[in-house]
Amino acid sequence: MSQAQTAPEHLTPQSEDFSKWYAEVVQRAQLADHSGVRGCIVFRPYGYGIWEHMQRLLDRRIQATGHQNAYFPLLIPESLLQKEAEHVEGFAPQVAWVTHGGDKELEERLAIRPTSEAIIGAMYSKWIESYRDLPLLINQWANVMRWEMVTRPFLRTTEFLWQEGHTAHATAEDCQAEVLRMLEVYRDFVETDLAIPVHAGSKSDAEKFAGAEMTYSIEALMKDGYALQAGTSHNLGQHFAKVFDITYQDEQGKRQHVWQTSWGVSTRLIGGVIMTHGDDHGLQLPPHIAPVQAVVVPIWRKPEERAAVLPFLDRVREALVGRVRLQVDDRDQYSPGWKYYEHELRGVPVRLEVGPKDVAKGAVMSVRRDNRAKESIPLEGLGERLPALLEEVQAALFLAAREFRDRNTSTAATLEDLVRHFQEDGRRGFVALPWEGSAVLEAQIKEKCAATLRCIPLDQSRFAGMAPAGRRVALFARAY
Amino acid sequence: MSQAQTAPEHLTPQSEDFSKWYAEVVQRAQLADHSGVRGCIVFRPYGYGIWEHMQRLLDRRIQATGHQNAYFPLLIPESLLQKEAEHVEGFAPQVAWVTHGGDKELEERLAIRPTSEAIIGAMYSKWIESYRDLPLLINQWANVMRWEMVTRPFLRTTEFLWQEGHTAHATAEDCQAEVLRMLEVYRDFVETDLAIPVHAGSKSDAEKFAGAEMTYSIEALMKDGYALQAGTSHNLGQHFAKVFDITYQDEQGKRQHVWQTSWGVSTRLIGGVIMTHGDDHGLQLPPHIAPVQAVVVPIWRKPEERAAVLPFLDRVREALVGRVRLQVDDRDQYSPGWKYYEHELRGVPVRLEVGPKDVAKGAVMSVRRDNRAKESIPLEGLGERLPALLEEVQAALFLAAREFRDRNTSTAATLEDLVRHFQEDGRRGFVALPWEGSAVLEAQIKEKCAATLRCIPLDQSRFAGMAPAGRRVALFARAY
Repeated sequence: MSQAQTAPEHLTPQSEDFSKWYAEVVQRAQLADHSGVRGCIVFRPYGYGIWEHMQRLLDRRIQATGHQNAYFPLLIPESLLQKEAEHVEGFAPQVAWVTHGGDKELEERLAIRPTSEAIIGAMYSKWIESYRDLPLLINQWANVMRWEMVTRPFLRTTEFLWQEGHTAHATAEDCQAEVLRMLEVYRDFVETDLAIPVHAGSKSDAEKFAGAEMTYSIEALMKDGYALQAGTSHNLGQHFAKVFDITYQDEQGKRQHVWQTSWGVSTRLIGGVIMTHGDDHGLQLPPHIAPVQAVVVPIWRKPEERAAVLPFLDRVREALVGRVRLQVDDRDQYSPGWKYYEHELRGVPVRLEVGPKDVAKGAVMSVRRDNRAKESIPLEGLGERLPALLEEVQAALFLAAREFRDRNTSTAATLEDLVRHFQEDGRRGFVALPWEGSAVLEAQIKEKCAATLRCIPLDQSRFAGMAPAGRRVALFARAY
Repeated sequence: MSQAQTAPEHLTPQSEDFSKWYAEVVQRAQLADHSGVRGCIVFRPYGYGIWEHMQRLLDRRIQATGHQNAYFPLLIPESLLQKEAEHVEGFAPQVAWVTHGGDKELEERLAIRPTSEAIIGAMYSKWIESYRDLPLLINQWANVMRWEMVTRPFLRTTEFLWQEGHTAHATAEDCQAEVLRMLEVYRDFVETDLAIPVHAGSKSDAEKFAGAEMTYSIEALMKDGYALQAGTSHNLGQHFAKVFDITYQDEQGKRQHVWQTSWGVSTRLIGGVIMTHGDDHGLQLPPHIAPVQAVVVPIWRKPEERAAVLPFLDRVREALVGRVRLQVDDRDQYSPGWKYYEHELRGVPVRLEVGPKDVAKGAVMSVRRDNRAKESIPLEGLGERLPALLEEVQAALFLAAREFRDRNTSTAATLEDLVRHFQEDGRRGFVALPWEGSAVLEAQIKEKCAATLRCIPLDQSRFAGMAPAGRRVALFARAY
């Protein structure tokens, strides 16, 4: 075996420079690359594979709750975007404009969709006639574009990929139930499949979606103590229904405006996974979304060992086909140690070492990425044991992340306490503050310590005793 | 049961006005809708569902041949697009240009991708270093935009959805093998899953892709006698490698330019399915890609019949769950006859009627969309029989389409014969003409009778005897 390769370079430790660590992981794990187009990244196969697994797992939940996928145009005429005043005010500064088609200047500028409420609203006004057409439950997987000044792979890019659900309902109650239903779908998806613990709650007016009545979000905490908004669900009320004239005839024959929701998660979740689970050795991918769940590394020195080990790999493959997403790394030009390093960097949840002694025993040696725990697994039990082991890793990643999140959640009794936490003590994390909804106070906090109101948790039981009886807490943090 | 609904309006017969029939089917089966944005359609859930099944079945084949999915930016800087002269000349007239981001004018215009050779070429030149990096086999599912003057739902739209494969190889031989491999993947996919028979062959210089060395395509025949190019696979030679400087170090340490391919199919295939299988009653969807493979229609007049029939529907559902994509149409406001009409219009391959007599027998009555054949299927055998029946429908649709195609394929010995066929006799279909590759002759044919050279079939055995020994035939047709 050729040992020609040089030892791989170490990553910058997270504690030294978290941003640099992040950029290095993205590049060296080949998740994404800079494209040369302002703020746009290329999703390389390994990074895109993570997104494909997220899509598959979330799409299943979206279908199971009665939604159907559709696809609406990329371009939105300026006049359509301008119909809802708050909406256009919020998005216009970020819009990329198409002004020419071929060699002709267009009569009206077209926006590349920053989000699709306007174009979908225009269609819903055509499609919805009667109460029998409601609820209308549609989801779209698409690319969108927001002209950002400062970008960062996955977290904030000019073009990103997402899903956006858009629904219309007969009553305000049905509408609000949908908003909370999809918030819960997101919470369950992100916690179960991405192993990222989140707080689900409502946003303040200052932080709500442009054009919404009310915005809800799920909020996660990254390893550097910054919060990440991981998904949003908006109650649009009748704002868009009124400007796009979306009405239905009710059972009494009366015309009514519909009530609408929209909700979305994006490729920013990939950034959330990196910053929740990654460590100084690189990525750690939750098995549910790992493109490679286990990698097999053969070990041999002498040709006769090679002759014993290599045929055994086929038996490992056979034992796991259809059960585990497996990569067999039988490249000759790299040593086992080099491969261990690379697959740890790529965050493969479990490595299976196969050396002459393992073959003699008819077993493989599994090594977990998260805690390095080793276990010799007999070949005949591998098809059962490895999927179970992967579930153990999945659960352990979630518990570790929740433990970290809770350890980095503090309480503050007053504005001064909260400002001191972020400003003077230089701490991060979530801070729970008793909250009565003052926009002035919220602005002061933002100005003084750059912390924003992430959400007012729906489940206040976790914060029992932190606020006077009958009052709620809001979670503040510095955020991505 | 309310019989309030009016009898549904009939479609324009295909023989009366095929274009009108097409437009009516697209609208009334709710496949797509006009968006108000020039040349862009909305893919409604039923139409998008067809595309999702196509994606799933084709993506499986793309993965099985060793390709990985990735995602590249939507926007391509003008300078990048201009690098390959033939490429930009071919696409520039059709490009939508972004000139402003937010309220700022951009320093350089950005093209919305009409296809991604340029942006992908720029990345490949960064990624490929050694022969060990080859072949590089990447596919992208994406939206693209071409500013078309005349548009038609699915067949030609300003924005459309597609997959585009882009590969790089060490040798010309590997490159050509990939071109033909993916052409064969397309042929197999389109014939097996869409039940559309195609001829696979090479294009003439006049019809090849802008920037390609050689283009291959699969060509289908629609029910109005027009041909449809259903997929293309291009040998790009070293054109892009030279202008984007995509090189690798070979085993001898020498720098070489790579050899490239690209290949794609698009949502135009949905149009192909409509025009291959549809009839005067509406759509006919091949079961492999039908969002609804079978629809259950309960039949009852008296309340006691309703009480017997409705609970039976759950047993039908249970028998088929996970085996067949089923819709149970238990809407009270429509009669069974009205539902039959609607589901025929929507092209559902099999309908299952459940009336009191069927319930008494413990059976359902299946009715095929293609030939109206009826069969009483006992409930206990339904989970086995219905999937088999759907495969019979799938095969019958393919055979009927192939029979139509072959019946509408003629031969011509000379240019004059061919022109007479299209021009004076007013006939359509494919015409096979012995061919030696004269560009002048090809241009004359196009001018005189609007027929173009669709392809020179790879498999000439079907045309044995049509050309003098040692000579090949080319297929001509008027085309979409």
